[in-house]
Amino acid sequence: MNKKDDKNTKTMMDPKDCTACDSTAQMITKARKDGVVLAFDRAEDMKPCPIGADSACCKNCFMGPCRLNARDPYKKVGVCGATIDTIMARNFARAVASGAAAHTDHGMAMLELFRDVVNGKILDYEIKDSFKLHSVAKSLDIETEGRSDQDISTDLYKELERTYTQVDGEMPFVKRVPKGTLETWRKLGIVPRGAMREIMEMMHRTHIGVDQHYENITKQANRTALSDGWGGSMVATEISDILFGTPSPVEVGVNMGVLKEKMVNIIIHGHEPNLFESMVVSVASPTLVQAAKDAGADGINLVGMCCSGAEMMSRHGIPHAGNFSSTEAILVTGAVDTMAVDIQCIKQGLAEVAKCYNTPLITTNTRAHIEGAVHIEFNDHLPMECTDEIVIKAISRFKNRVHPIEIPKEVKTGIQGFSHEYVQYMLGGTFRGGYAPLNENIINGRIRGVAGVVGCTNPRTKQDDSHIQLVKELIKNDVLVLLTGCAQIAIAKAGLASPEAAHYAGPGLREVCETVGMPPVLGLGSCVDNSRILIAASAMVAQGGLGDSIADLPVAGAAPEYMSEKAISIGHYFVASGVYTVFGVTFPIVENTKFHNLLFNGLEEQGLGKWGFDKDPIEMARKMIAHIDKKRKELGIDQARERVLVGMDDRRQL
Amino acid sequence: MNKKDDKNTKTMMDPKDCTACDSTAQMITKARKDGVVLAFDRAEDMKPCPIGADSACCKNCFMGPCRLNARDPYKKVGVCGATIDTIMARNFARAVASGAAAHTDHGMAMLELFRDVVNGKILDYEIKDSFKLHSVAKSLDIETEGRSDQDISTDLYKELERTYTQVDGEMPFVKRVPKGTLETWRKLGIVPRGAMREIMEMMHRTHIGVDQHYENITKQANRTALSDGWGGSMVATEISDILFGTPSPVEVGVNMGVLKEKMVNIIIHGHEPNLFESMVVSVASPTLVQAAKDAGADGINLVGMCCSGAEMMSRHGIPHAGNFSSTEAILVTGAVDTMAVDIQCIKQGLAEVAKCYNTPLITTNTRAHIEGAVHIEFNDHLPMECTDEIVIKAISRFKNRVHPIEIPKEVKTGIQGFSHEYVQYMLGGTFRGGYAPLNENIINGRIRGVAGVVGCTNPRTKQDDSHIQLVKELIKNDVLVLLTGCAQIAIAKAGLASPEAAHYAGPGLREVCETVGMPPVLGLGSCVDNSRILIAASAMVAQGGLGDSIADLPVAGAAPEYMSEKAISIGHYFVASGVYTVFGVTFPIVENTKFHNLLFNGLEEQGLGKWGFDKDPIEMARKMIAHIDKKRKELGIDQARERVLVGMDDRRQL
Repeated sequence: MNKKDDKNTKTMMDPKDCTACDSTAQMITKARKDGVVLAFDRAEDMKPCPIGADSACCKNCFMGPCRLNARDPYKKVGVCGATIDTIMARNFARAVASGAAAHTDHGMAMLELFRDVVNGKILDYEIKDSFKLHSVAKSLDIETEGRSDQDISTDLYKELERTYTQVDGEMPFVKRVPKGTLETWRKLGIVPRGAMREIMEMMHRTHIGVDQHYENITKQANRTALSDGWGGSMVATEISDILFGTPSPVEVGVNMGVLKEKMVNIIIHGHEPNLFESMVVSVASPTLVQAAKDAGADGINLVGMCCSGAEMMSRHGIPHAGNFSSTEAILVTGAVDTMAVDIQCIKQGLAEVAKCYNTPLITTNTRAHIEGAVHIEFNDHLPMECTDEIVIKAISRFKNRVHPIEIPKEVKTGIQGFSHEYVQYMLGGTFRGGYAPLNENIINGRIRGVAGVVGCTNPRTKQDDSHIQLVKELIKNDVLVLLTGCAQIAIAKAGLASPEAAHYAGPGLREVCETVGMPPVLGLGSCVDNSRILIAASAMVAQGGLGDSIADLPVAGAAPEYMSEKAISIGHYFVASGVYTVFGVTFPIVENTKFHNLLFNGLEEQGLGKWGFDKDPIEMARKMIAHIDKKRKELGIDQARERVLVGMDDRRQL
Repeated sequence: MNKKDDKNTKTMMDPKDCTACDSTAQMITKARKDGVVLAFDRAEDMKPCPIGADSACCKNCFMGPCRLNARDPYKKVGVCGATIDTIMARNFARAVASGAAAHTDHGMAMLELFRDVVNGKILDYEIKDSFKLHSVAKSLDIETEGRSDQDISTDLYKELERTYTQVDGEMPFVKRVPKGTLETWRKLGIVPRGAMREIMEMMHRTHIGVDQHYENITKQANRTALSDGWGGSMVATEISDILFGTPSPVEVGVNMGVLKEKMVNIIIHGHEPNLFESMVVSVASPTLVQAAKDAGADGINLVGMCCSGAEMMSRHGIPHAGNFSSTEAILVTGAVDTMAVDIQCIKQGLAEVAKCYNTPLITTNTRAHIEGAVHIEFNDHLPMECTDEIVIKAISRFKNRVHPIEIPKEVKTGIQGFSHEYVQYMLGGTFRGGYAPLNENIINGRIRGVAGVVGCTNPRTKQDDSHIQLVKELIKNDVLVLLTGCAQIAIAKAGLASPEAAHYAGPGLREVCETVGMPPVLGLGSCVDNSRILIAASAMVAQGGLGDSIADLPVAGAAPEYMSEKAISIGHYFVASGVYTVFGVTFPIVENTKFHNLLFNGLEEQGLGKWGFDKDPIEMARKMIAHIDKKRKELGIDQARERVLVGMDDRRQL
């Protein structure tokens, strides 16, 4: 099914148009020679359903599926009478529910791991970051003074469990929400209760014959998304930091060149750090290292991809081989001796590509099997049983390599591993820690504003390209950029994560970067770690001088190459938290409809953020900067900015 | 949007082909004269998307929507590499998740009402059925001896809350599952933990790049569906019985003829009994009755539709005006002075039809608004504020009636209000209560087996017709039929719910009906009350002589006219509980695929039930009877049946 047959390769898209990543382009070329089909080719072969792409179809019952006409959306209604607005709102809400569920389920897994570490049932992990434990506990008003980590942890577990199981009241981390933002949520009735309840209720309300007013559906979508950002995701991040350490800056190499021809190459790809953390232990096992050497290898080379890769890169400086669109392509090197995966963003197509190169593809999580992959269940109570076995499989494959190896040379080194804690330290130093310097630099106009650039890559658009163009345009205009997930990897591959990249920045931002010695972009980790951006935004509000809600801040967000429902949930929790958030590629809504107007304008009128859309990254940057400038004006700090803004032309004239 | 414009009415389907319900047919004719469009016409106008109908499209991410070819399903895969089996399993699983969420959210609302009644925060409701309270508590090993209802209720609430919030372990009502069935579930790892967790995890696993093995997805779909049947739905039923009374047989009139031209007609349509229970109080208010009389009416006529209607019909003998496909049509009578709705199966199209006849359509539930309807929020703490207002709106509309009234004459009287408790009493009497007589009659062959006929009506098939044909065929073959939901109303309208209908039954079943004085079909209530069928099946196993698991019983289920995701969840919890379950109309799966084979065969091989599909109700009956006969043979009771089976031809020869 995966091998090309009668396809005329001449008609296929030039690899250079598929991706801005040279390594990936090189592997697309090789794959075509090898007769192997990748997602780029499948995307070219698969015309997206035009009605579905506009979200103008509904298959939520069996009187349909009903299809409306996006060009004349109010002409027709579904069999049940659902209008285009009801249908689009339902589809959008289900995407939010699924995305929020992904982060909730991941967060719950982390919290259960934490519980069993604390109660001594799990011995292979421990609390690595006691400082973070104390700070998270304090942020939830848990007494820490003079208490043991064990006692604090027990209380913290009990408190955070409410994030998921609570059916009424407000989630624990709502305590971190700026006052102005929280007041708006309370007024609108969208403070999340518990993540599982919000997701369940969302699925109920999108059932045939339940919620059929797009405004009311959106209200619950707000609450569901917020239960992700301030709940599922935030707990996942905070607990992972406590268990595995809060990231701090580290120099790391990124791109396929991190593979080593003479070593046993193992790639971990997924979203749960526990598998990867145990892999680190397994690959250091003297017995297994010896086994690798006995097989003729120089050693074992463990690298990451995708989001758990981004976490390990941030926490431990483990090299990262690439983002979502490169996971099949890297197998084409022939150098991957095993790819082990857990959950989320694992393409089923990996199974076929892996088979072509005789690479074992190993699924490890009970929630994510893949037909055609080998399943070796990862168990937190006996983690090495799985991870050792993965290494053994890789050594065995190394010994029996049958394919010629072709490893692209690209590796870009940069600084990764920023956390909201480190940002605070970095900008303020030990004695002056806090967000004051950041706020001051925003107020005085050196930094125009802050942008989060996040999200996936998508074979429907040139890989990494929009990320790179967008980020360059933003920093050129003195906007400090925070990155997570596949966006962060795209920017790292483009060499923008090094302090030297400050020369791409405008004069104000460059000055700050050079003073602090930081790059103009700060990579915060995996897509779950977008919660770090929420916390940073709250800290900026708390610091003062920039309004009393997140919606007041001169900030904006973007996911220029998104592809997943998680991205929709993330985008929507930023919007519901007060951030203008612009997506690229496609937006699953018919324009000139009431629901479109609600997302793109109405929510802002309610005191929240709003959605934006643009396929063109430069236009996207322009919209984000215009929004930042609007917020500066509302804050009365636009005058300062005008004084500071000295373009290169002006400088030359001076 | 709802008014017909240039449509040539001559080309429209004959109303007699749209429905087997004469009242509804009469109203379709009138609606067309009035220029009003109903769901029947919308269905005719809307060609179902053929790819979506086969579940061969996936819109779970934004690299798609991807469409495969149902005629050559293994030729292509999605952009991510998802095969037809992954895609279909994901779509099916999400339908289960949504259906289970609907019942879970409803059950949680009932349980929260119960909690606040018990703790004295809500004063307008009370525990009406102390006997049921004790029996439910006992079934969960809660001590009842010498304890107050208050204390028992407090414990029961705490225990049942686990149904929803628990994240590990087994749900409370799993205690009711027959030993053999439970063993199979434990072996397969599908015992539900908590409903919210199962739904959330299902939504996660169907996200792009997570679970991509149809067998593993189905495993979680099993667990999610079971969390509905033995969780969300069962709690809803049991708590509603405790609060509002367990149904016992009552004679009720069903069909549009229950409307009264000279009275203020109020229809309640939805799924939550609390709104309806409070309506009963409001319409009895002397002030409001006087106001109705002052407006020129003979009084106030409260009738039900859909599932809360079915519950009120069963509990209090309140007349029922029709099922899902008649809810728009009844507005065409011009006689409905107000329709108030809560949640589920409320067509958005009602808003337009109601507007055409100047009927207030009132939404009452925070989870279900409809654009164009009036929203009067129902609050359990002050229920009469909403229900009195509904009556006032209805009186006002009566006073200002502008449309000619045309009420179809049909009303069929029958016996409704069977519960699993009453079935036990009815068949065994006070001294010999229990399922022994039922089992004995099955073993001796008078009753061949038991069938559950449930589910919706669907404008894609002639309303009620398949229900009626199927049930007639089953009872003719000595199969006792249990009914719920819209199926129960269809059968009542056909006059099959009276003891006299026993003459349609085969000789064995007729003998039992005549001895007991019962109809050959037993209506058990709303679609949530399908849980009563699970309990009855468990009681049959517990009684002995018919195997040790539900899968051993000579029983089968059907939803010949289903349309909702709730129906998919219900069907799947019956299948996962061990029942052969046959659906009509359409089945959202491509045949000759691995996933199809798993649902239609593989699950049975695992010790569960299996799915079946047939559009033809007679063929459906044949399949169900063949399955019942297969189970009789496996139990070794087929010989007895052969002795008893005396057809009419044989009798005549005798």
